[in-house]
Amino acid sequence: MSAWVLPDHIADVLPSEARHIEELRRDLLDKARCYGYELVMPPMLEHLESLLTGTGEALDLQTFKLVDQLSGRMMGLRADTTPQVARIDAHLLNRVGVTRLCYCGPVLHTRPDKPHATREPLQFGAEIYGHVGPEADLEALLLALDCLKVAQVERPSVDLGDARIVHALLTATGAGAALRQQIQTALMAKDASELASLSKGLPDAPRQGLLALVGLYGDAKVLIEARRVLPALAKIHAALDNLAWLAGHLDGGPVSFDLADLRGYAYYTGARFSIYAPRASDALVRGGRYDEVGAVFGRNRPAAGFSLDIKAVVGAVAPRALHAAIRAPWGEQAALRQAVAAMRAQGHTVVCILPGHESEVDEFHCDRELVQVAGQWVVQTL
Amino acid sequence: MSAWVLPDHIADVLPSEARHIEELRRDLLDKARCYGYELVMPPMLEHLESLLTGTGEALDLQTFKLVDQLSGRMMGLRADTTPQVARIDAHLLNRVGVTRLCYCGPVLHTRPDKPHATREPLQFGAEIYGHVGPEADLEALLLALDCLKVAQVERPSVDLGDARIVHALLTATGAGAALRQQIQTALMAKDASELASLSKGLPDAPRQGLLALVGLYGDAKVLIEARRVLPALAKIHAALDNLAWLAGHLDGGPVSFDLADLRGYAYYTGARFSIYAPRASDALVRGGRYDEVGAVFGRNRPAAGFSLDIKAVVGAVAPRALHAAIRAPWGEQAALRQAVAAMRAQGHTVVCILPGHESEVDEFHCDRELVQVAGQWVVQTL
Repeated sequence: MSAWVLPDHIADVLPSEARHIEELRRDLLDKARCYGYELVMPPMLEHLESLLTGTGEALDLQTFKLVDQLSGRMMGLRADTTPQVARIDAHLLNRVGVTRLCYCGPVLHTRPDKPHATREPLQFGAEIYGHVGPEADLEALLLALDCLKVAQVERPSVDLGDARIVHALLTATGAGAALRQQIQTALMAKDASELASLSKGLPDAPRQGLLALVGLYGDAKVLIEARRVLPALAKIHAALDNLAWLAGHLDGGPVSFDLADLRGYAYYTGARFSIYAPRASDALVRGGRYDEVGAVFGRNRPAAGFSLDIKAVVGAVAPRALHAAIRAPWGEQAALRQAVAAMRAQGHTVVCILPGHESEVDEFHCDRELVQVAGQWVVQTL
Repeated sequence: MSAWVLPDHIADVLPSEARHIEELRRDLLDKARCYGYELVMPPMLEHLESLLTGTGEALDLQTFKLVDQLSGRMMGLRADTTPQVARIDAHLLNRVGVTRLCYCGPVLHTRPDKPHATREPLQFGAEIYGHVGPEADLEALLLALDCLKVAQVERPSVDLGDARIVHALLTATGAGAALRQQIQTALMAKDASELASLSKGLPDAPRQGLLALVGLYGDAKVLIEARRVLPALAKIHAALDNLAWLAGHLDGGPVSFDLADLRGYAYYTGARFSIYAPRASDALVRGGRYDEVGAVFGRNRPAAGFSLDIKAVVGAVAPRALHAAIRAPWGEQAALRQAVAAMRAQGHTVVCILPGHESEVDEFHCDRELVQVAGQWVVQTL
């Protein structure tokens, strides 16, 4: 096989797309910063137990494993950054109050999530620790929407759910771990007949609730219907109140609900949101509350946040216009070199044409040229 | 062992340093852009033979290896980005003329380079393909110096060498590959007695040249001395002329020469440079000419460039001042939310104090506060 063939679902990013990704990366980090989120950079590699304890089997299967030559221990390449940021909050910063953190960097997956997915997403995310109330969930959701706005994603729509609803129903059934897992899989697939068959023999009230969940998706009427058909458990009502409060603070953008939604990471413990856009086949953002994610690091702080793949977002929006550049000849004269340096210091791109390459096609879009007129170097339109 | 202990030579980057790294990352990419270098993003993972063919044993030992579950083939985590960028130039872009490319991303090493080195440098670099003349080497060197200037590295000094000098002498000795390797190791260590012992029995003229190389480092007198003591081989004289030309175009900054220098990557084929600074224990930048690096991808283009580790540069300069932020209360009133959004849209960081957290210490340096005065939300100095 040829040396230049890349592995499946792994790709180079070439200049025009790379520029778009880099610009968006900056916009997103600046947006998070202006909300007060501090940047952290966790490593690509960690001991396997730091990366994977408490994060679920799906993430384990997605994680590349390596032996550390220095210690002989197993390390993993991060497949998700959230557990790392929870570790930083719990141990390195160890603050008492609210802590807001953001990050941006590659994650690697052993297998693609979806048929056309990359195995190397560029994950950007933000997390808020230390506040148990819904204001933290709302802030994460509003920041995520602001991020999609700066990315020029058109007509984003928010889909809300709450992990506590499924959990409360499953707990009320008294089902064992293996059966709970099977029921969750059927719920994710909205497979009503499989669900009916699996739940045979479980107590009737929570069983009817689970069966009803499959149909509980759509607009705000879903919340009213849920109060009618789901068992009157305190946790379920708290979750429904919370969802209504969140939806009421979204300033009128399109909101839907999916009370059976369990997609994304296994660590969600409360409200959860996905944001979709017309040009994207899957959710561009997933987020929510994951109060347990720091527990393995000895500090069970309330936490909410979201993450997105910048490459996926760039794939769902129109390309950005390239900036134009200035052509300049190569030369040893001090006046020419100073003119080039001055234009660059002003932020212009100046491409020097090296000797012998005068007739080559410019790869940059050069719309101006540095030329000598009456002894002075000046910029002229091409 | 505790779940939060990181592997040796792997570290989290916490907020103040992460901010500095991010700012420098942008400054360096902008600097490369204004010289006309287009950004590319090669993947973290490639098939092992793409990453390692022709790049030498040292890089092989530095590279983490993994099995691709999708194909069963061996993959490597990049330990250096230059071979990837050469592949992109050779195959993906496949341009006839001069191509300028830059990149920035993590690389991973199985073992640290030096006792206190990280195994996860953040490598930034720039490469110019398609020009055989010294103007390309000079452009790479001037861009590297400009990058250190924008990073606020004080008093950088350039050390120049040329891989052709050692190669020409070794070729003239007729020594076999194993002996050449041993001689190169002795040269790198400037071990004159080992070199004398290894070279016993080799032809006298190139042997005397190799022995002389150990002492050929220092200021511009080195080039004069080299012409006197090294054999009068055409390649050696071309290399010395080239070094004199480069040094003459550096606008008076401190320049030294080390004609036995073979450090850094094995792929250098011509002029090579290292840039040092008083606060850094090792070279901050290594670069030079590596015309052969694309050969394995079927396209042997002239190439010159450099790379640096942004983390190492940040470690060698003074910390940057943190930007101050504005404190704001959390509230549902439209006027407050609009005031917060307006300040953020102007680029200010506004930290909302969530309900119940009013008495916590701000982690951001908040020097202003959003307060309501006569029904209006205004920013006041704290």
